[in-house]
Amino acid sequence: MPEFLTLLPPDEARALLLAHLTAPIADSVTIDSALALGRVTAHDILAPHPLPEFPRSTVDGFAVRAADTFGASDSLPAYLTLIGEIPMGAPAALTIGPAQCASIHTGGMLPVGADAVVMLEYTQIINHGEHKEQISVDSVHSVANPEIEILRPVAAGDGIIAIGEDVTAGQIVIPCGTIIREAEIGGLMALGLTSVDVVRKPRVGLISSGDEVVEPGHPLGAGQVRDVNAYTLSALITRGGGESIRYGIVRDDFSALQTMAQKALTECDAVIISAGSSASTRDMTADVIRSLGAPGVLVHGINTRPGKPTILGAANGRALIGLPGNPVSALVNGYLFLLPVIEKLLGASPRPRATIQARLTINLASQAGREDWWPVKLIPQSSLPLGGGAGGGVYFAEPIFGKSNLIFSLAAADGLLRIPPDATGLSAGEVVEVMLL
Amino acid sequence: MPEFLTLLPPDEARALLLAHLTAPIADSVTIDSALALGRVTAHDILAPHPLPEFPRSTVDGFAVRAADTFGASDSLPAYLTLIGEIPMGAPAALTIGPAQCASIHTGGMLPVGADAVVMLEYTQIINHGEHKEQISVDSVHSVANPEIEILRPVAAGDGIIAIGEDVTAGQIVIPCGTIIREAEIGGLMALGLTSVDVVRKPRVGLISSGDEVVEPGHPLGAGQVRDVNAYTLSALITRGGGESIRYGIVRDDFSALQTMAQKALTECDAVIISAGSSASTRDMTADVIRSLGAPGVLVHGINTRPGKPTILGAANGRALIGLPGNPVSALVNGYLFLLPVIEKLLGASPRPRATIQARLTINLASQAGREDWWPVKLIPQSSLPLGGGAGGGVYFAEPIFGKSNLIFSLAAADGLLRIPPDATGLSAGEVVEVMLL
Repeated sequence: MPEFLTLLPPDEARALLLAHLTAPIADSVTIDSALALGRVTAHDILAPHPLPEFPRSTVDGFAVRAADTFGASDSLPAYLTLIGEIPMGAPAALTIGPAQCASIHTGGMLPVGADAVVMLEYTQIINHGEHKEQISVDSVHSVANPEIEILRPVAAGDGIIAIGEDVTAGQIVIPCGTIIREAEIGGLMALGLTSVDVVRKPRVGLISSGDEVVEPGHPLGAGQVRDVNAYTLSALITRGGGESIRYGIVRDDFSALQTMAQKALTECDAVIISAGSSASTRDMTADVIRSLGAPGVLVHGINTRPGKPTILGAANGRALIGLPGNPVSALVNGYLFLLPVIEKLLGASPRPRATIQARLTINLASQAGREDWWPVKLIPQSSLPLGGGAGGGVYFAEPIFGKSNLIFSLAAADGLLRIPPDATGLSAGEVVEVMLL
Repeated sequence: MPEFLTLLPPDEARALLLAHLTAPIADSVTIDSALALGRVTAHDILAPHPLPEFPRSTVDGFAVRAADTFGASDSLPAYLTLIGEIPMGAPAALTIGPAQCASIHTGGMLPVGADAVVMLEYTQIINHGEHKEQISVDSVHSVANPEIEILRPVAAGDGIIAIGEDVTAGQIVIPCGTIIREAEIGGLMALGLTSVDVVRKPRVGLISSGDEVVEPGHPLGAGQVRDVNAYTLSALITRGGGESIRYGIVRDDFSALQTMAQKALTECDAVIISAGSSASTRDMTADVIRSLGAPGVLVHGINTRPGKPTILGAANGRALIGLPGNPVSALVNGYLFLLPVIEKLLGASPRPRATIQARLTINLASQAGREDWWPVKLIPQSSLPLGGGAGGGVYFAEPIFGKSNLIFSLAAADGLLRIPPDATGLSAGEVVEVMLL
């Protein structure tokens, strides 16, 4: 008799699986910070020194003693003697005394004696006590015996970044478990941390099974199909920050499948068996998972579509997932169950997941208690030029119909629309959330 | 005198830049389809054969002639003689005649004579004309002289995918300019297309300038800072699908900068100069861009914050961008102007950009006409277990304050909140759109 499935809600199923993992992975590797995009920090990163290390001007202007500018206005300027120019990338040789100033560029190091910078826009230069003009920081020194009129008062600290204003020495600047993005790479470089310890990539083994399945590069006989799941899932693992290891195609035979799964389990943090969708191969996959160690099968049957026959299991703290052979089911369930496994193995602090708000074009029925994921095309409601990095805009979500196992129905989709378990459907015109593929 | 900036709206500035590019890149490269994630197809991909290539069962059950099941019901079943089992991965040796059927697994090839498959659930087996039970497709053949009771009628085509139902031979399955995701890789593999022609990665040259800037690995003298922009932008280019080439740090000298920029321009599709933020270095960058060819500087000054002093230019169809030295400005403007350049060079059909809807925690003032991008932290409003691939949920967007040039203010941010040019601010409690970093 085939097993009858007791369907678990997907959130419960996922939580059960995640609870059985030994995570995060304890191994770390040291890599070049410049190449760390997408990796996850293996421990807290502390600032070895403050940033900035010296008080820096944030504007073009004149380094001053703030007290000398108090009360300054257009009608009653403060007059300061210009004693020199601050070089870039080096400390100034000069010291600002009372009623003195020095020209300074954005990023320049504040000279001794000064405690603020007045923006160029609020100054004028007096040439031989007569001609006044606003000039650049560069050309000011061509004027003989220049005096600077200050037209606005500044407070101490104005126009500069103080030492440690970005980060202080010893501060945790990037916590353990952070997914490294452009900004983190920048922060590491700013602190001179040109290498970084990151969590080893989770290794995910991929086993395809099915007597009808052949490698994509091989000639196809009648009744045969090419292995799709090993490649879609491998790409998904890469995208999720893991490393995929392909164990090839195993025939529909318990002992062959068990041998290969056992090997993969010793080499990987998670093993995916993409089996046939028939009840018999599904049951064989469950039996193999049971045979590999405790606790074995945790979930056999999930109340989601596609993906009802998905099997979730664990052995010795490692994930074992049996995905349907149907390439759409396998990939959608990869998103739903495999990506969270990789995230947990990495110990990655979850970042908000980007979605798209869209207006559903038609009614979609669903079954109460079941979570549905529909492939949808997103069609811009307006033709506003949104530009590259500019905001999202509003879309129509148009469900793609067709039998659930057509891989090109997913290739045509921009995302997956979720119908939550407590809904019996969604109505045309409703604003829905779409997870981008 | 320093140049006074005439500020262009960011959308207009971007459109002007993009209009001057020779795009998409004409060169393509042939790569392994398994490694094509994120690459862009260089031409339309046609199906070399239909998918599926043979009629496949989508269920476990019995291959039948649909006409034999017409009118079948629980009370008046149709009786069919079971003549064998369809093997997986090979055509059946048998032919289904009138009143005959054969057991078939999901994915099996429909035998000659059959035109539909009845699901196992709607059948029963008769053992020696007496005992009835529902059994599996596997165990049915252990019964002697079995007859199958069919309890539901099927129409021709039920329970199968027909030849070409996914794609037909010669159909464009992946259009030119498609960003390859997991599903496209799956589609290529399903068709046996193990290699794919993709657009060469756009080469983006990165030049840092500034007498105060040193390589991150070098010891830091007083007044010096480490190069951050070459590394944040390099990571951004990688993420956007380009290839970054670093030309190192050039001193603040027109001819040195021009020589390096000229070299980069001959080797790259786009060149980024990250210069100092002071008016003098900014003006020098503009002069260098002007000297490299027509049309030179297109935009000097953009009505956006951060990024007002950004310079957009082009020479010989290649992009030339001068970014402020301030690492936050440089990276945010990289998102706004460099990513769209890479997208256009790739000829990539834009996919909807994922954003997060969030509720603003405080009032944010802005200047009418200016587009502001605020770093924000996203804080979940609810603690619902959203799971890995599950929908986004609702967040609070909490702006991060601090001077605009602190790289760690961006490292602390989950995304950038846009205040559109036509707004003078946003109110606490408003639902806003956040672009994830």
